[in-house]
Amino acid sequence: MVKEQAHTVSSYEQQLSQLRGMMVAMGRLVTQQTEQAVAAVVEGDTEAGRTAQALDPQVDQLERDIETLAIRLLALRAPMAGDLREIVAAMKISGDLERIGDCAASVAKRALKVDTVPTDVPAGALRSMGRLVQENLRRAVDAMSQQDSARAVEVWQSDAAVDELYTAMFRELVTYMMEDPRTIRSCTHLLFIAKNLERIGDHATNIAERVYYAATGEMLPTERPRGGASVR
Amino acid sequence: MVKEQAHTVSSYEQQLSQLRGMMVAMGRLVTQQTEQAVAAVVEGDTEAGRTAQALDPQVDQLERDIETLAIRLLALRAPMAGDLREIVAAMKISGDLERIGDCAASVAKRALKVDTVPTDVPAGALRSMGRLVQENLRRAVDAMSQQDSARAVEVWQSDAAVDELYTAMFRELVTYMMEDPRTIRSCTHLLFIAKNLERIGDHATNIAERVYYAATGEMLPTERPRGGASVR
Repeated sequence: MVKEQAHTVSSYEQQLSQLRGMMVAMGRLVTQQTEQAVAAVVEGDTEAGRTAQALDPQVDQLERDIETLAIRLLALRAPMAGDLREIVAAMKISGDLERIGDCAASVAKRALKVDTVPTDVPAGALRSMGRLVQENLRRAVDAMSQQDSARAVEVWQSDAAVDELYTAMFRELVTYMMEDPRTIRSCTHLLFIAKNLERIGDHATNIAERVYYAATGEMLPTERPRGGASVR
Repeated sequence: MVKEQAHTVSSYEQQLSQLRGMMVAMGRLVTQQTEQAVAAVVEGDTEAGRTAQALDPQVDQLERDIETLAIRLLALRAPMAGDLREIVAAMKISGDLERIGDCAASVAKRALKVDTVPTDVPAGALRSMGRLVQENLRRAVDAMSQQDSARAVEVWQSDAAVDELYTAMFRELVTYMMEDPRTIRSCTHLLFIAKNLERIGDHATNIAERVYYAATGEMLPTERPRGGASVR
């Protein structure tokens, strides 16, 4: 009987540990996808673009595996308090990570359609936005891996800066299109690329909010520190 | 002891029933938000636009309440099989519903920025898209309320038609902008409105997939029946 109980306990701990490992793996994959997608847009690196898209099925599979394992853990032993919050958070965070992967793959696909990234302001703004979003994503994944609520708060506060960059890009691209209608098609794709980057940033902030709740049992304010006028 | 057990069982059933009620309420709210948002765009109904946005905090609160109750149910008694799948599905579906609400509010906000919806093809296409997306959303919410896997499959199959309409709109709007650069700002907003409608449709399909899994224990194919060339 003692032997059975010991086996049950170690099996639960093993599976919980496995769940954590899968979350870290998924976080790393979509971070890589995002980096490759940004390189595809900003550097015109078509190989990177292909990599970003090719990683997507792996990411989708991980989301399903994480949900399956989370459900098994919930059924195996009714986890309480911190463990329960962590398992529920894993299910929700894996959803955010999967969507980040989709956004990155979408950015990579669109990068192929942009004839040339205009070499002036829009390109610089896109590079800044890509860099900032990658940074927030990396920090959100780190916060998740280490269940670090302080780092989660930092990511949450950085959301505004991404929105501001996006708003600025939107205005610049509309002006650009009005000045030179031949650029409309390319600029439209750039607009959607910028929107997808902004969504990646938004999902990274969702992850930070869930990490904070899982780690502390408390929720960050629903109003995020706001930047970016609503005139987008 | 018998009295306690009876109380525990009825408490679980009560709370499960409460969870279902909250899911239905949330489904109805975001369906209403979507209807109001589409009216704001297509009819220029600013009152409807305000309603769509005003409903958003209620929707967000419901998502948090559903998660709290789902966690309580998981902790109260380790649900098995169908109940467990249903509770996990509720947590994930509430996330999709919340995002639909965000998209609808975003559409409503943007509707205020579109000076005039061009009275020809783009307006007709937007109306068609709005109608189709609302229909898919209603059917997805019904499928969820009745745990109806057959209806879920219907919604899943309808995803392609939404994508096709979106692709057509994208092409039309780009052509429109090139022909008349004075329409660029409005058309850009219409593009994003169309994109948000397409995302609502996508989330409705996510909901259908989760309903199917919760009801049957099996997953629909990961490749959705595809429409819409990738040249968007």
